[in-house]
Parts: sequence; structure tokens; C-alpha cells
Amino acid sequence: MLPDQYPTRLERRMNMFYRRDPVIHGNIATATSGPLKQHHLEQYKKEGFLWFENLFSDTAIMDNLLKEFSDLEKDQSIVKSEQAICDSNSGSLRSVFGIHELSEEFARLTVSDLILGMVRQLLGSDVYIHQSRINAKPGFVGGGFNWHSDFETWHAEDGMPSMRAVSASLLLNDNNEFNGPLMLIPGSHRYHVPCQGVTPDENWKRSLKSQQVGVPDTASLKRLINNSGIAAPKGGAGSLLLFECNTLHASQRNLSPWPRANAFFVFNSVENALEKPYAGTCPRPDYLAAREATAGLSQVHHAQQVAM
Amino acid sequence: MLPDQYPTRLERRMNMFYRRDPVIHGNIATATSGPLKQHHLEQYKKEGFLWFENLFSDTAIMDNLLKEFSDLEKDQSIVKSEQAICDSNSGSLRSVFGIHELSEEFARLTVSDLILGMVRQLLGSDVYIHQSRINAKPGFVGGGFNWHSDFETWHAEDGMPSMRAVSASLLLNDNNEFNGPLMLIPGSHRYHVPCQGVTPDENWKRSLKSQQVGVPDTASLKRLINNSGIAAPKGGAGSLLLFECNTLHASQRNLSPWPRANAFFVFNSVENALEKPYAGTCPRPDYLAAREATAGLSQVHHAQQVAM
Repeated sequence: MLPDQYPTRLERRMNMFYRRDPVIHGNIATATSGPLKQHHLEQYKKEGFLWFENLFSDTAIMDNLLKEFSDLEKDQSIVKSEQAICDSNSGSLRSVFGIHELSEEFARLTVSDLILGMVRQLLGSDVYIHQSRINAKPGFVGGGFNWHSDFETWHAEDGMPSMRAVSASLLLNDNNEFNGPLMLIPGSHRYHVPCQGVTPDENWKRSLKSQQVGVPDTASLKRLINNSGIAAPKGGAGSLLLFECNTLHASQRNLSPWPRANAFFVFNSVENALEKPYAGTCPRPDYLAAREATAGLSQVHHAQQVAM
Repeated sequence: MLPDQYPTRLERRMNMFYRRDPVIHGNIATATSGPLKQHHLEQYKKEGFLWFENLFSDTAIMDNLLKEFSDLEKDQSIVKSEQAICDSNSGSLRSVFGIHELSEEFARLTVSDLILGMVRQLLGSDVYIHQSRINAKPGFVGGGFNWHSDFETWHAEDGMPSMRAVSASLLLNDNNEFNGPLMLIPGSHRYHVPCQGVTPDENWKRSLKSQQVGVPDTASLKRLINNSGIAAPKGGAGSLLLFECNTLHASQRNLSPWPRANAFFVFNSVENALEKPYAGTCPRPDYLAAREATAGLSQVHHAQQVAM
């Protein structure tokens, strides 16, 4: 097992420190061969995310995906499964995990040459899907998410050794000021904020509804936000957000009648395969964190066949 | 007792209907003699609120008020009193009522010729303070408020007969996209949305933390928002929002490190004195709803001496 470079879920408070991994991985050849331009790479390195407003402008693609999501929402065998998480206040569907395995439409998106091309530039290697999900916020009842780093959880609860993963979030609905768009702290990806609090067994059964451990302390949040503010990209369905696995993010409730569903695909480098969870807990189910390196590799192989 | 023009807190659902009161009261002479111009009056009539960014630009006034609020926050005899409401999740101070009686600085503001002048134009008569409060949202912990009409509560639980009151909200801190600014539904003041659900005894002991009755149904909210959207005025400390007593409003949690405290002064027409609560409950305490017409009148008299 690799040494723990990012201690977290600690009994005592520990100050935040600079990340030990590069933000853009690989070498000049891998970083420059793909759809992202030099200014994209520089922005990603500095801010920890890239925003492409209305990237997928083909409404037929987006209509198909929304239809697919609507079918998933209606499928009681999915809604009642462990892969579906309901909001603890309203009971409405909050998240569905493993969407690239539930839906051919979403699977195709994860292997599109555009998204895969960008992700490979950033991670400097072949990649596989670590996790996929839709986070849904129906009008008036969709709940928010507190500030957190995804990597912090994937490291502690899934055993992801290094910060070498990226999330691609595709907007299935328009995201505006009032329906709970994703908020990010630019530059926060450059720091590891160790979190206080030991991880309970099967924490994910609670944490996916409301995160209690793996929550950064407010002093660190304040320092990071006062440094560079908060960004909340807004735009139409088909816009894409790429964000580094360690970029702190959060979102508000949906207080509008306008539903907000975003699909997330988390790409991990095949050179960053999962170890035992660093929090010492049992590994989470496969739909939350794919543990099979071969599955990852075949995914990439499939991707190359379909999209490249 | 005047007949109930605005049935609410009902056992069965009842559709929303047009308000039975004018939006601007009095006559042409009262409406046009004051600081508000014709275009202000038209906008207020249409949207139900007026926004004056950085109206009180004198930083000394604002510093004084913030200092005063900070003193109130530290005063344990106030924080532990019934006039102070704490957030049910974080325990942080959420509201302090009766601030114009607790603080000379805030009292002076309620009788400033500018604010009183505008309010009299809108209400077409002399006025008194029905309620005053500060709603505070400290960084990271300040909770939000669901959509509601203040008049709906004042009518049901305080016995305010007609829609003839206006709230003046003064920003004590900068309000931005991330610290939970007030959101309003433009035009919603033109409709009464009867709410379903009978009012429990001493409802205010719970409702000031989290409103459960007096909540408009989502179908009506959706219709009103789809009609004219949502507005969330943002600006520096010293900005002023005047909003009609029946304009639907809400706000998000404060997910930023930037505190957000707004002072509210509710002016009611002396011709709209409180009756028995229309919900059939006991009247709420005086710091939530001033019941003394004489107090109101002396207030106005004092106002005239000081400010006019």
C-alpha cells in the first residue's frame, strides 16, 4: 500500500498544506495533444476547473439524455435500490449512481472523444470511470451540499492514493442563480485540508444524504474563499464543467420551480488505481467507487474503439 | 371586527385570488408629496418592491448601526430573551425583534424623514412601527427562509385586516450572491395565496425558526415565478429595500464566510390597526406585533418632531 500523502479524518486538527501532486499530470506531449488549448491548461492549473458554456449545443443529444434520466426516475427498481439516494427532508430523488452502467446514452457520453480527449490531457494517461452519478434537484425540494473536496472522500473511504482524477459535470437543465448551481472555490485544489473526525462504518449510507465527516473546518474555508472568492458558473443545458478532484465545491437548495439535474462522470488515471481505504473502513460499493482495474481498462479500450 | 378578506390557514386548498386592497393607498395628494417619484410609484405598484442601492452612503451611520448590532449580539440578557431567535441547526443568532426599542440608533432610523416620507406616500396616512427586527446570517452557519408572505402571517396571527403595510429592509452588510440575499417574486403582491393547514397554538415559537404553516403551495409559487421570475437585489451596506407586505420572499443559507445582517422595519398604516388574529389564535407578543394604537400614534408624533 502506498504511504498516506493526505492524512484526513483525524482525531486532532491539522493545518492545511500544499498538495503533493501536480495539477496537470503526464508530460508536455500528453498535455498538449488534445482539444484543450494552452490557456485552458493554465486556467485549470490556477483555478482547478474549466467551464464550457453550451458545449453540447445539439438539442437532440440533450433531449435524449433528459428522457433517459426521466426514465431512470420512473423506474422503481432503480429508485428503490441502494444506487438511488433520496433527500432526507423532502424524500425526493437526490442522486443516482452508476448511470453509465444503467444507461447506454450516458455510457456513450463518457467515451466521447471530446470529453475523453480533454480528460487524458489533464491526467496524462489512460483513464477509467471511478464513479458516475446524476445529482438532481427538483423544483422547490432539491437539497444542497455543504463545502467538500471529492478527493478527500475518495482518498479516505475508497483508497484513491493521489490527486489524479477529474470530474466532468454535464448540465442536463439550465443552471441559474436560483436553482442551486454548483459553487466552487477557485484555487482550493492546490491545498489539502485535513478533516477532523473519525469515519464511522458504512459512513456512505449517511454521508450521501448529508455529509458530517470529511467536512473542512471553517477557518480554512474562510482563508481559501477570502483568497479568491466563490465561482458559480451558470448556463444552459449542455454546458460542461471539468473540475479537479480536490477543488472545494458546494451548492444551495433549489428554491425555484426550475429543476436542476447535473450528470457527473469521474475519470481516474489508470496509474492511480484504488488501494485500501485510508480511513481504515471497508471499501464502499462498486457503484460508488469502481475497484476493478480491468473494468477501467476495458472501458478505455471501448472508448478508443467508439470515439477516437 | 372587520370581515376576513384574506382567508388562510384553511383545512382545504383554496385557489389564489387578486388582492382586495390597492397597492398604493391614499390619494394623489398623499402619493405624490414625498421623496418617491412617479416612476418609483409605478414600479412599486407593478413589482411590489423598490431597491435603492447604497442609499445611506455615509459610512459613519452604517458603522454605528453595525456596532450597535454587535453590542446587541453580545448582550446575554437580549440573546437569552424571547426576543432573540436562534437557528435550530447551528444555534447561531437568527433574529432579534423589537430593535427600535432596544437601540436608540435603530429607533432614529425608523423616524428618518427619508424613510418615513417614502412609507407615508405608499400607505397614504400616518404610520407606526408594527414590528422591527434584525435577521442575521453569520458566515457558513446562517440558515435560510422559505417562500412566504409576511402579510399572511400578520393577518392570521396578528389580526392585520388589510394589505396596508410596508417593510423597509436596510442592509447592514454587503449582500452578494453567496451570503443569502433576500429573494422576491416580482408581482406576487397582487395575489393572495390562501395557505392550507390550521395554526397551532403559539405557532410563533416554532415558525420563527422554521415556518411550517402559512407556506404557499408549490403550484401557486410556480405560477407566480414562471410569470415574472425571481429578483435578488444585491449591493453594499446602506442599501435599502422597500417591499409591500404581501410580496412573496425567501432566502438561501449563507454558504460564504461573509456575514449578512439586514434590519427590517415594518410600517403599518394607523388606519389598519390590528384586530383579533384571523386564525383564531391568541395574539403574539408585542415585540412581534405592536397592538397599541397609541404607541403607534406617539411614534408618528415623535417622528414628526424629529424628522419632518
